Amino acid sequence: MTTRQDALALDASDPLAALRAQFTLPEGVIYLDGNSLGVLPAAAPQRVARAVRQEWGEGLIRSWNSANWVTLPQRVGDKIGRVIGAQPGETLAGESTSVNLYKVLAAALLLVGQRRGSGDAARRVIVSERSNFPTDLYIAEGLARQHGFELRLVEPDEIAAQFGPSLAVLMLTHVNYRSGRMHDMAALTRAAHDCGALALWDLAHSAGAVPVDLNAADADFAVGCGYKYLNGGPGAPAFLWVHPRHLQRMERDDLWQPLSGWFGHVAPFDFSPHYRPAGGIARFACGTPPVLGLTALDAGIDTLLAAEPAGGMAALRRKSLALTDLFIALVEQRCAGHGLELVTPREHALRGSQVNLARREGGYAIVQALIARGVIGDFRAPDVLRFGFTPLYTRFAEVWDAVEHLRQVLDTGEWRQARFNQKAAVT
Amino acid sequence: MTTRQDALALDASDPLAALRAQFTLPEGVIYLDGNSLGVLPAAAPQRVARAVRQEWGEGLIRSWNSANWVTLPQRVGDKIGRVIGAQPGETLAGESTSVNLYKVLAAALLLVGQRRGSGDAARRVIVSERSNFPTDLYIAEGLARQHGFELRLVEPDEIAAQFGPSLAVLMLTHVNYRSGRMHDMAALTRAAHDCGALALWDLAHSAGAVPVDLNAADADFAVGCGYKYLNGGPGAPAFLWVHPRHLQRMERDDLWQPLSGWFGHVAPFDFSPHYRPAGGIARFACGTPPVLGLTALDAGIDTLLAAEPAGGMAALRRKSLALTDLFIALVEQRCAGHGLELVTPREHALRGSQVNLARREGGYAIVQALIARGVIGDFRAPDVLRFGFTPLYTRFAEVWDAVEHLRQVLDTGEWRQARFNQKAAVT
Repeated sequence: MTTRQDALALDASDPLAALRAQFTLPEGVIYLDGNSLGVLPAAAPQRVARAVRQEWGEGLIRSWNSANWVTLPQRVGDKIGRVIGAQPGETLAGESTSVNLYKVLAAALLLVGQRRGSGDAARRVIVSERSNFPTDLYIAEGLARQHGFELRLVEPDEIAAQFGPSLAVLMLTHVNYRSGRMHDMAALTRAAHDCGALALWDLAHSAGAVPVDLNAADADFAVGCGYKYLNGGPGAPAFLWVHPRHLQRMERDDLWQPLSGWFGHVAPFDFSPHYRPAGGIARFACGTPPVLGLTALDAGIDTLLAAEPAGGMAALRRKSLALTDLFIALVEQRCAGHGLELVTPREHALRGSQVNLARREGGYAIVQALIARGVIGDFRAPDVLRFGFTPLYTRFAEVWDAVEHLRQVLDTGEWRQARFNQKAAVT
Repeated sequence: MTTRQDALALDASDPLAALRAQFTLPEGVIYLDGNSLGVLPAAAPQRVARAVRQEWGEGLIRSWNSANWVTLPQRVGDKIGRVIGAQPGETLAGESTSVNLYKVLAAALLLVGQRRGSGDAARRVIVSERSNFPTDLYIAEGLARQHGFELRLVEPDEIAAQFGPSLAVLMLTHVNYRSGRMHDMAALTRAAHDCGALALWDLAHSAGAVPVDLNAADADFAVGCGYKYLNGGPGAPAFLWVHPRHLQRMERDDLWQPLSGWFGHVAPFDFSPHYRPAGGIARFACGTPPVLGLTALDAGIDTLLAAEPAGGMAALRRKSLALTDLFIALVEQRCAGHGLELVTPREHALRGSQVNLARREGGYAIVQALIARGVIGDFRAPDVLRFGFTPLYTRFAEVWDAVEHLRQVLDTGEWRQARFNQKAAVT
């Protein structure tokens, strides 16, 4: 049996332990929901306050130049690029994951459409997982409806059967939000390319959580979220990435991503009446960038880059796996017989940085009872208890304590109290 | 001749003078660029700091419910609705003007497309002004390209000739960014409807600047900007408005706006794999709302609502016209013979809340020389010097002083110095 002393010993020897000092965590809270909203970087309040009071309040319109607001999407994008295997100039921060997905999936369908025009008419299926995060499916459903594609939703073990002449785009979230299961990005991308299709990856649960190398995997398009493991704050700007070969082809063939707003224009401040896309990734920009949100996100991504001297994403991955291994082991040791089923794969290569448990009944109420005790995870309908582990700040002793709370909630049956069963608007 | 004493007397008798105390203005600056970026509301730093430190830092994921983040787009939207003649539930805050325009123009084209399907095949022209703000034209150009419409750009005096069986959508910015000229929204909307077309209005330079009554004008769609006269901060979320008849028709006929993200789903937290649009204006929501940006925008719109006891937009309009009248008169009295041409109409019914001057040469450098003296206006290529007047905080004495600086810059020729002619990235 693993004891609390064992967990404390792991913290004592953790080479990344000092990174936690970068964050402001509330007293009395064990936060296992960084996969939904990352915690507050200690530097963020001052950075945002400076953007508000000095840059906006004092600099006013001049700050577009003097505070360099105009390049924030590229500068923050390039920082994100460092944790996802992107080269400078390939990543753009801004807007929401949904809007960014719309841009890149529409671009992918345009590229496929070019080939359909030249005899590849059968290539009309977008494949994704049925349990992919819903907004990805909704955006794809809308685009399929607009442009005459079929969105086909399959189970993970059915993906292998989808590679063929009808596959247009394989659109997957690298780490599934509901199962915590991680796909093999390089292998699936290769299989997509081998049958003439494109591969689009949502990195919402992997950017900052697991090592990602988009260029090594030869991915085509990617998007991701700023408010989870990048610690960018509530509703933070998201990001998108496009392989340079597609940027070049779009430029050569005059293909536009559909959200052709002024920040994606080659010369926005010439105020020309006709759209001419900018070169490079800027072609995927649209509206005026959200300066306050990008400033907070910039502080968030800095907390990850601070891990580079200690080994960066590889070191964070080692700790993440140790945290999730410990959580799984402790749940099995201490909460056996309570009907909890492990949803997340045991195999490291298939696991993200979260552990999800299913339970036939009471999942929502159990999560609420834990939250009342200061252990914050979340619930995903209909039956998933979800626990995220952020190696930048989660301690091994917190894992031990969280499982102890879970054990007590189950042993005492306190989750059966009515107040834990009243569903809130956001769960 | 109008003296500085006259201007001071106007300030002394200004019933709205007290509203300026709501803002933090830098020392030594006369800010005539609130039409590009509104100044900092004094309440904004604390409101944003609370959202960062308490709601994000302490509340963490729980704040979606406890701080009511989830309804921010509707709550802020309804506040904006109060200055644009919208009923509660018709306006949604979030994303950029460009993205919002894409949603509502796409919806308009869908509605027109339904009729094209039933025999109205000639209705395929989107009409706008050649000097409309470029991002509106770029978004329309992209949508026209995607969906087989023609974007026709005309001069203001050519609009009247566009009403006919081919007109699909009349898309105009109510107050032109470059001329300061205001359209008659009700009359043009009526003319569009009379020929079977729809009218879409961009309120970027009118929301919070001039009285707008979308329902009285029977407009079809509207969008607008959060960072100009709404004082929402750099890159603030924008807003959109849709007439309820179109929301009802979209619901009845299962029409989706294209950015079908999860916040526009009828039940986002059910995590269903299929998109079913929410009822009402929420059908136009897309991604996770930008909480920090919406919080600053909320503080911004509050500065306008604070004018309601003093007469609201009608009172602000009276002061705005008095400010722009004074500026025009003073420029003509004091800067005559310097080649400045008034671009903005003299007629009150045709004027927004800015005054634009054209000059054959040196416009950029003159604006830079003024900025060096602390008088902040802006320049719009190729030849427009633009001065915005925000009745919430601009004083009559500032108008007098600004014109005096302009006179000195022109009389001394100091704008000819090389340093004023070096163009910055954003002008």
